[in-house]
Parts: sequence; structure tokens; C-alpha cells
Amino acid sequence: MPLDLTASSADITRYICDIPSVSDDETRLADEIFAAVSALAHLTVTRSGDTIVARTQLARAQRVAIAGHIDTVPINANLPTRDIVENGEDVIWGRGTVDMKAGLAVQLKLAAELTEPSVDITWLWYDHEEVEATKNGLGRLQREAPEMLEADFAILGEPTAGEVEGGCNGTMRAIVRTAGTRAHAGRAWMGENAIHAAWPILERLARYEPRTIAVEGLEYREGLNAVRISGGIAGNVIPDACEVEVNFRFAPERSLDEAIAHVREVFDGFDIEVTDGASAARPGLDAPLAREFLAAVGAQAKPKYGWTDVARFSEMGVPAVNYGPGDALLAHHDEERVPVAQIERVERGLRAWLSAA
Amino acid sequence: MPLDLTASSADITRYICDIPSVSDDETRLADEIFAAVSALAHLTVTRSGDTIVARTQLARAQRVAIAGHIDTVPINANLPTRDIVENGEDVIWGRGTVDMKAGLAVQLKLAAELTEPSVDITWLWYDHEEVEATKNGLGRLQREAPEMLEADFAILGEPTAGEVEGGCNGTMRAIVRTAGTRAHAGRAWMGENAIHAAWPILERLARYEPRTIAVEGLEYREGLNAVRISGGIAGNVIPDACEVEVNFRFAPERSLDEAIAHVREVFDGFDIEVTDGASAARPGLDAPLAREFLAAVGAQAKPKYGWTDVARFSEMGVPAVNYGPGDALLAHHDEERVPVAQIERVERGLRAWLSAA
Repeated sequence: MPLDLTASSADITRYICDIPSVSDDETRLADEIFAAVSALAHLTVTRSGDTIVARTQLARAQRVAIAGHIDTVPINANLPTRDIVENGEDVIWGRGTVDMKAGLAVQLKLAAELTEPSVDITWLWYDHEEVEATKNGLGRLQREAPEMLEADFAILGEPTAGEVEGGCNGTMRAIVRTAGTRAHAGRAWMGENAIHAAWPILERLARYEPRTIAVEGLEYREGLNAVRISGGIAGNVIPDACEVEVNFRFAPERSLDEAIAHVREVFDGFDIEVTDGASAARPGLDAPLAREFLAAVGAQAKPKYGWTDVARFSEMGVPAVNYGPGDALLAHHDEERVPVAQIERVERGLRAWLSAA
Repeated sequence: MPLDLTASSADITRYICDIPSVSDDETRLADEIFAAVSALAHLTVTRSGDTIVARTQLARAQRVAIAGHIDTVPINANLPTRDIVENGEDVIWGRGTVDMKAGLAVQLKLAAELTEPSVDITWLWYDHEEVEATKNGLGRLQREAPEMLEADFAILGEPTAGEVEGGCNGTMRAIVRTAGTRAHAGRAWMGENAIHAAWPILERLARYEPRTIAVEGLEYREGLNAVRISGGIAGNVIPDACEVEVNFRFAPERSLDEAIAHVREVFDGFDIEVTDGASAARPGLDAPLAREFLAAVGAQAKPKYGWTDVARFSEMGVPAVNYGPGDALLAHHDEERVPVAQIERVERGLRAWLSAA
């Protein structure tokens, strides 16, 4: 039985969760989505790899981009989905339910249903969100066909438990290094221990006081953390190198360059290599479409802490928010699960706004 | 051509170095040694695995154990041996020349030559010295047939550049741990970073002032060092565990238990697991045979910093020293090499003492 977009959003959630689509293995699900939306006369559909774009061409005054990734993190004995009851609520349990196939199901259903939306819509369903940024399908589209992302407002279906989360913190990684001189541990005085030399790096991290910064009325909490430390050659050798990998999550007030400069300042005197970075996104909630959207879905605005693809839209000057069913704390969790009522609430919220006169 | 024990000690060195015998691969060399010494009527030869014991049974008043390991660390494009000239001296270059086949060659030559030594001799040639202590052939013999190690004095052929090095530092390893709480790095305040918590461990190591302790007139330098540090789960996770492996090299003044207590005191307040330990050995240079030996070979007594198998004899109450050709700083070095004159000096020293009336 192929994907049926007239089914309920809960049934579509079950159906697309039960098609495993761990990153690098999205083709089967992409094929089903492509077949289903290609059959819809009101959408112009294009596909690049496992990324599918479906656009209305109604010459509306405004265009909204609505996006969701189709991949998941690896399965850990949590598929097929199960229907469970938790605190009296119907819940769908299984890999991908939260991150983010319930949100994807709502988008697919409304893409089929809303033949005459009040704004033009660009639906974007993309691959490789859960792995390194270079593989990200939305990023690839942004490089190869940036016009596909152009819009007056964008909504990512990442889990927000039906609230609206604006913007996101940026993230950067760096390796802070110490060097020493190798020697046999029996003659330690002939060497210089690089692990010992790393103590001020860890002390600065331990004493670091992260800021909480208000941006457009939302409070973003920053964090600077060691995520890995390594050093040592053998049990009888004084090590000549030690590395501390640090991750800085920074509020939208800072640019990526400012964030890098801050980290360099914190570790002043040490050798630092910046390995990875992604800008933060401002909440974008002061845009008129964003204000209308918040009012229509009746949701509260909150800050998003994790980095999400809203930053890609933000980079292009498109205000963007996260809005989807599911508790973000359960994303990637082995007990990933989403209440059916939350899926339906997001479905109603999106439909109401996209259908408003 | 089989191993010829009437050849010069330099030629025997070349011959046995050119039979690779990296730990776990000693059988071919053990076979050659066993065949050569089994042919000698004045020796009673036994073999257990790749450990060979050859004893004179002359009912002398005193017995001396003379031991050497037959394995080497891995080859790194440094075999076959080469004859080179350095500062006008003939030098044999290649893996094993220093640690310790030149010493082994001297022992093999004298085992064959000295049919009527002035003391009874137990020659011990053993496997697996360069790997974990549990595999050590001399240790295995000590457990299975401790009477084979009984003697009034023992000489290990480890490289001492022809000097006599007495005793050895002890060594122990421990893992010092911190714990925390895992969390997504985007929500760091929900976790507790175990790597950050390790800073006082590294600070204490950096500020530690190792002692130099005189024992029987020889000065032993201690050292306390991190030899490994590890922690971290993924680039976006606050780590809940960090481990620092420390190695304490301690003077013969301390017992192993005292050394462990000292390390526990240094890292007071942290979780510590002792993973490995070997007692130090007192120099043993006040024993009458040791004094005679020093006088006969005309060498200076020095402390040995690295742990060697002399500690096994020391544990059994047998005074033991290291005496062999080769610079210990070149042991395990890719440019391992030994001057021929040093091999011959050790040969003369040992012969003189073992032949003395």
C-alpha cells in the first residue's frame, strides 16, 4: 500500500516511521514521498537526490517555506512503531516519531489538502540532517538552487511540542592543544608532560560563567564545554601532546566570528584550531508574517537552544521558526514518542494559518 | 649456519639480532639458543616455553644467576643489523642491539666458554620481557619453579653502558576518575561536565614536586605523571566521565603499598583505581658478592631508574644488579646501536669475575 496523504496525520506518521530512513538510507522514503506528491496537480515538484521540493504557483503576495528532514538517527530496536497509552493519552512510540516524522506527516498531509492556501508555499523535504553539515540536503539545495529557499517566512518542523521556537543558538567547535616533550616515564625529568600543561584549559572551562542573553525578548542560554579530551602514548611514556575539544553554543547576539574571537580570548595563550562552526539565527519573531503566525496557531514563542536548519533561512534574510509536534528532549532517545493530540494540534495550527483569508 | 658460541661476542650479537624475536615471536631464537647450549656438556639445560635455563653443577660455595631476555620491541625498518662507524668507533646498529642482544651475546659466549667458573652459574634466557608483566618468562619461571632463580647474587644484562646499576625504581599505575551527568551540549546546564571536573587532578600533577631519595648511597629520582587522559562521548554531548591514568615511579625506600598510599593521598577526594604495580628493588650493593663484583669489573655503581627484572630477584632476597653493554637511552629507539668496544668490555668484566680464584 503506497503512502496515502488523505489518511490522518497520525496514520501518516506511523506509515512513514515504519519506512526506516536512517541518514544515507533515505531513498525508499523519498521515493514514496515523490510518488505521492507528484500526483498532486496543484504542486510543481522537483527532486534532487533525496531532497524533494513541492511548490504552489498561485501568484500570492507572499511565499512561505515549510521544511522538514526525512532522515533519522540510527534505529535501536525501536521500530516498528507501537501505539501506547501514557497518562491516558494516545502516543506513537518509535524511532523518528519526534525527530521529525510526526512534523513531516503534518506537512505532507497539508501539502496534499491545501490546494488553495492563502500564501504560496514551498514545501521542502530533505535528506542528511542528522549527520555532518556538509551532507545536509537543505544545505546542498541552498548552494545549488538558492532560489528554492526564497520566501517571506520559513517554518521548520523540528519538535517544539507544538510551541513556536524562534531562532537558534549558534555552535562552534575548536581544539585547544598543549605540547610537551616525549620521554620514558622512568626518566620523566627528561620530558615535559603535555597532559599536565592542560590544567589551565580545564580550570578556565570549570570557572567559565555562561551568559544568558535576551534577543527580541527571548532568553538564549550560552554554554562553553569540553566535549572530548585525549592525550597519551603508552603507559610508560611522558606524553608530548594533549587535545581538548570544546563546543561553544552562543546566542544570536553574536556572529560566528565574534563567537570564535570569544573562544580565542578564553583560551588565550594556548594553540587553538577552529574545526566547525554554524551561525546562530535571530528569532525573527518581529516579522509581520511571524506575528500573524504566532497569533493564528495560538502558540507561545520560546528560544530554541539547539542549532537547527532555521539558521540557513536566517542567513538568507528569511525569518524562520521551528514548529512541530514532539518533545525535543526525546529526540534521538531510544524511547522517542509523540502524543497523537500534539500531532493534531500542530496540524490544526498550520492549517488555520495557511487557510486564513 | 647455526648459532656458533665460539664466535666473537660482536658476531654473536649480529647473528642473534638478525633473527627477529619481537615479543610473541621468540621461538626461532629460543630454538637456536637451546640447540647451541644443549650441546655443552658442562651445563644442565631445561626449557619451558621459550625460556631456557642452563646451570653448572660444580658444587661451588656460591651460585650466581645471570639473566637476559631474548625478545625485542617491534622492528621499525631497523633490521638486518648494519656495521657503522661513529666517532671513529665500530658500532653495531639495529633493533635489539641495545635492548638487549649484545648483553645476551656476551652471556651466551661465556656460558659456552666458562666450563669451570669460580662460582656456580644459572644462566636464564627468557621471553616476553617487553610486554605486559603477566607474560614475562622470568616471572612465569618464578611462579612455576622458583628454585631456578635461587642464587647468592644476580646479574641482569640490561643496558647500562658497561656500568653497574643497582636496584631499580618501583612503578605503579592508577586511574583517577571524575564523574558527571550526560546532557545535550545545547542544554549544557542540564548536565555536569566530567572533563571540567578533572582540572584539579591535572593541577596537582603539574604542581607535584618529585623527590630524589638516597638509598645505599645511590640517588633515586621519583616521578608522578599522567600517561593518558580520556573523556568525551560525541561533539554535542556533555561528558559524564573522564579518566586520567597516572604512573608513579618510586624509589626503593618506599614499598609498593606505601607508594599506593602516597598516590591516594595526592589525589585525595577523587575516585582512584590502582591497575598495576611492581615493587622497587634496593641496590643490593652492600652484599659481599656485589662488592667483589664491582671491584672485579672495575665499574661505577649507579642507580637504575627504569623498572627491570632485578626486582624479581630482589623480591626473593637475592641482591641483583644490571650490567650490560648499550646506552639505555637508545633502548626502543629506532636508531638503537651499540659500540663493539662496549660489548667487549662487558665480556672481559664478566669473564674476569667469573674466572677469579
